Amino acid sequence: MDGVSGVRMRLLVGRRDGAPTFSMRQFTVEPGGHTPDHEHNYEHEVVVLRGGGEVMYDGVWHAMEAGEVMLIEPNVRHQFRNTGAEPLEFLCLVPVTHDCGKPTPGS
Amino acid sequence: MDGVSGVRMRLLVGRRDGAPTFSMRQFTVEPGGHTPDHEHNYEHEVVVLRGGGEVMYDGVWHAMEAGEVMLIEPNVRHQFRNTGAEPLEFLCLVPVTHDCGKPTPGS
Repeated sequence: MDGVSGVRMRLLVGRRDGAPTFSMRQFTVEPGGHTPDHEHNYEHEVVVLRGGGEVMYDGVWHAMEAGEVMLIEPNVRHQFRNTGAEPLEFLCLVPVTHDCGKPTPGS
Repeated sequence: MDGVSGVRMRLLVGRRDGAPTFSMRQFTVEPGGHTPDHEHNYEHEVVVLRGGGEVMYDGVWHAMEAGEVMLIEPNVRHQFRNTGAEPLEFLCLVPVTHDCGKPTPGS
């Protein structure tokens, strides 16, 4: 995916498992790595499990650390980056479909 | 709620926050405590954060521990109990609606 560096995604519960409504993915971002600066018309719910970094939400950067929870609303620009020395791990959940039934990427 | 003992629920991301599709709740079950033995026509996605215990799924008990992830499918009997000495903490996500638009309890 364009704009991604040092990121691994693991699908924990997804459509392949029969998830009816939403999918759970675990992301690991290496130090210095980042997810893409992008937006889409479905939401994320995020829980930081380990490490720390920064989240860009609607153009503004905020610190994030283990234990924090976020709702990334639909159609809002966002990006995650690891500014620490250890891997940044978070869960990121998405609806299994968007746009009246289209499968959500990575769900 | 009937059949519950030693359980606290904290809504992390819910309808009140504008969650469009699914809600994230954190449960803490004290040693000896348990959630109700019940079933409903919507799913749970569960991540065990801390502690250990047992989950009953369709009448059969299984060990559960931190780091494990579960899909509780709709219409399957289930219950969680803390058989350990420390609090059992897990995230449990539900769709915000079920039955064609009815608000899901605790979402």
